[in-house]
Amino acid sequence: MSNQHEEDRAPEARNRADRPSVLIVGGGFGGIAVARALAHVDADITVIDKQNHHVFQPLLYQVATASLSPATISQPIRTILRGQGNCGVVLASASGVDVEGRKLLFEQGDVAYDYLVLAAGASHDYFGHDEWAPIAPGLKTLSDATEIRRRLLLAFEEAEHEGDPTTRRAALTFAVVGGGPTGVELSGAIKEIAGQTLPSEYHNIDTKTTRVLLFEGSDRLLNAFPPQLSERAKRDLESLGVEVRLNARVTEVTEQGIRVGEEFIETNTVFWAAGVRASGLGESLGVPVDRSRRVIVQPDLSIPGHPEVFVIGDMASLTPDGQDHPLPGVAQTAMQMGQFVGKVLKSEIAGRSTPSDRPKFVYKDKGSMAIIGKNRAVAAIGHRRFTGFIAWLLWAFVHIAFLVGFRNRLRVLFNWGVKWLLNSHDARLIVGDTNMHMSKPVGRGFTPKQQDEQ
Amino acid sequence: MSNQHEEDRAPEARNRADRPSVLIVGGGFGGIAVARALAHVDADITVIDKQNHHVFQPLLYQVATASLSPATISQPIRTILRGQGNCGVVLASASGVDVEGRKLLFEQGDVAYDYLVLAAGASHDYFGHDEWAPIAPGLKTLSDATEIRRRLLLAFEEAEHEGDPTTRRAALTFAVVGGGPTGVELSGAIKEIAGQTLPSEYHNIDTKTTRVLLFEGSDRLLNAFPPQLSERAKRDLESLGVEVRLNARVTEVTEQGIRVGEEFIETNTVFWAAGVRASGLGESLGVPVDRSRRVIVQPDLSIPGHPEVFVIGDMASLTPDGQDHPLPGVAQTAMQMGQFVGKVLKSEIAGRSTPSDRPKFVYKDKGSMAIIGKNRAVAAIGHRRFTGFIAWLLWAFVHIAFLVGFRNRLRVLFNWGVKWLLNSHDARLIVGDTNMHMSKPVGRGFTPKQQDEQ
Repeated sequence: MSNQHEEDRAPEARNRADRPSVLIVGGGFGGIAVARALAHVDADITVIDKQNHHVFQPLLYQVATASLSPATISQPIRTILRGQGNCGVVLASASGVDVEGRKLLFEQGDVAYDYLVLAAGASHDYFGHDEWAPIAPGLKTLSDATEIRRRLLLAFEEAEHEGDPTTRRAALTFAVVGGGPTGVELSGAIKEIAGQTLPSEYHNIDTKTTRVLLFEGSDRLLNAFPPQLSERAKRDLESLGVEVRLNARVTEVTEQGIRVGEEFIETNTVFWAAGVRASGLGESLGVPVDRSRRVIVQPDLSIPGHPEVFVIGDMASLTPDGQDHPLPGVAQTAMQMGQFVGKVLKSEIAGRSTPSDRPKFVYKDKGSMAIIGKNRAVAAIGHRRFTGFIAWLLWAFVHIAFLVGFRNRLRVLFNWGVKWLLNSHDARLIVGDTNMHMSKPVGRGFTPKQQDEQ
Repeated sequence: MSNQHEEDRAPEARNRADRPSVLIVGGGFGGIAVARALAHVDADITVIDKQNHHVFQPLLYQVATASLSPATISQPIRTILRGQGNCGVVLASASGVDVEGRKLLFEQGDVAYDYLVLAAGASHDYFGHDEWAPIAPGLKTLSDATEIRRRLLLAFEEAEHEGDPTTRRAALTFAVVGGGPTGVELSGAIKEIAGQTLPSEYHNIDTKTTRVLLFEGSDRLLNAFPPQLSERAKRDLESLGVEVRLNARVTEVTEQGIRVGEEFIETNTVFWAAGVRASGLGESLGVPVDRSRRVIVQPDLSIPGHPEVFVIGDMASLTPDGQDHPLPGVAQTAMQMGQFVGKVLKSEIAGRSTPSDRPKFVYKDKGSMAIIGKNRAVAAIGHRRFTGFIAWLLWAFVHIAFLVGFRNRLRVLFNWGVKWLLNSHDARLIVGDTNMHMSKPVGRGFTPKQQDEQ
């Protein structure tokens, strides 16, 4: 087998010891952009990720709310990069970096590099209350999304067969913490599924009475957007029936509910879309990080004293000249940073430039958008603002266009078409634990005799 | 809320105490058929299932082999039955039956019934070796399917970065136990994905050298099919490269491999498609069961002495007059039994007949089919036999036609079309634990420097 395999190999793969090794940690928007930019470079490139698949994160909330299947918004990293003979993919979890020794550390051993790109992203931050994590899951991976979907759908099942009115009300109450795009999109979609898709399927409850509360710590939703769009998003959510609470500080999250200021709201289901905490790999570099653990990078996205180490995307903190806050942790930042690093490496590996020639990374803001429900979105592109149906069309167009894989685009279009026409949510699968905690079961057809007898 | 909800209810829902209560345990082919046959009957019907969704089991192996997404072959039971005002759905797991007291037992309490239909299906039988279950998962639920998919895909990742040739060979060896339709379909599909979809994506291994072994205890594959089709299925599988071992008794399954007779084959991945063990609910009825725990039912599918209790599908054992083996545990048996019981109940609830008038259940064999790979299948319909491409077309047509939900049919057609044209498997997601156990990691681009240094 190995003989035959040697013959299959492209000639470029020979003399590997002479070629520089580029390790890219993370197969998200940033990491994939670096790898693609290095397509024809004479180097050994490896993308390392804990998952075998790249996820189109902007549509993750649609998996969480049963509109799309996980496979529709993801693709194996191998498949994305299979055309690149110089690029391997490794399913593994790096534990740290030995910057001086130029080694990436794994449980099984160290791996040397000539260039390292850290693009491992971020997860949520529970503001020092990590004990809230199991109660209030965040939405960063496909597993998170199917877990949120499970809890969301299970809550309605629980309400349907719960005899105690207070407990039933708690099952039909959903709290979303964090008023960024994820929180806005999630709360709008939950209200939509409860109000439009589910009503005809439950006999004991009126799913239209579902309460969805969105808590935001600051004084407006969508902080990274222009204020007028924040205002519009709030109005649109409220007209859908979402209760938006601004300046709301969450002080307690338990199985029974959530405390916001003085008020305790009984709910079985809390979703977390607040705070950012960058991958811990950044800390192992031994250079300054900000309070979200993001690495403070140089203008060329490398770290001080080590031009061979780059940090990009959600792991990087870069404040452009003349501005007072760092670039936002969104897909386009990661992609642009990845393209930039790829271009720099390409030139240096080919010997056309050296680290002292490097340009500064310049971010081009191509706009921001968030969807609020069927036919409604807000978008800021350059100095233009869009709302309502036009913004929604723009949103759909941009998200389809950037989705990886032509087949996935067709699948998503098909699913959105069906959903738009029929208000359906076709991926309503509860997978995993289906145990419910009911105090007093009741249900039409299910327990009438029991009630008569007791 | 409850006031408004009362008004929403259809008039038929009133006076519920006078209406008979029908409990159906299981939302598979049998249970759904009973519920549908009772659509316009004046009764309180409840379908109880551990899962919220019905699964089209004949296509489950395609989820396990990354051709289809879970949501494509399943639908919430609520959605299937939402047009039926007389039918509720409960997500719960029944623990037993009190036949004399006419109660179905749950952890939370008992629920009384007038009629009970047990249609809870079966799982695999490890022939007294339940300790093999975690090593060799079976394929009955969507969770099983995604677990098999995870192990299948992870094995290739492990092989790609395994430096030790023996361990790498074990990672590229797959054993499937049981030569029924599931075993045949699974082994053919694994060989197909390894030989056609994956080769271009791995640099260190040649996935075409993947070994797939299919072990069957008897002297032919597809026991329920005519012998000439068993022979053809074996030939077709072998021409795909699957190693078929007949009269093979598995005597040991460990993390290191599988022992068959004298031989021990090193493999990391064993899938189980042998044996049948009916749901334990049947045993709680206090009537005779066969050695697969199936309840020996009367000719009208009820149990002795209790005309109000029916057992159908994979839980029932019924040997037709003049035959020497019971009806096969396949989808069409369950569906026909469900339709029969639904018709009987409809007539008796309407007062048009009594249990003494009941006809015998007569099974109409509409044929059997199994797919072997792209463009190949075997089918027996009446006295006709089909093989090769024609059988494959028939197979595809029948499976699309019986799939629940028009949208799912379109989705499956689309995915099959793409797969047929491009040999792709688009649902290659590893979700869950991605830890691998490698003895000696190696990988192009990943560890060249490490090798140089050591």
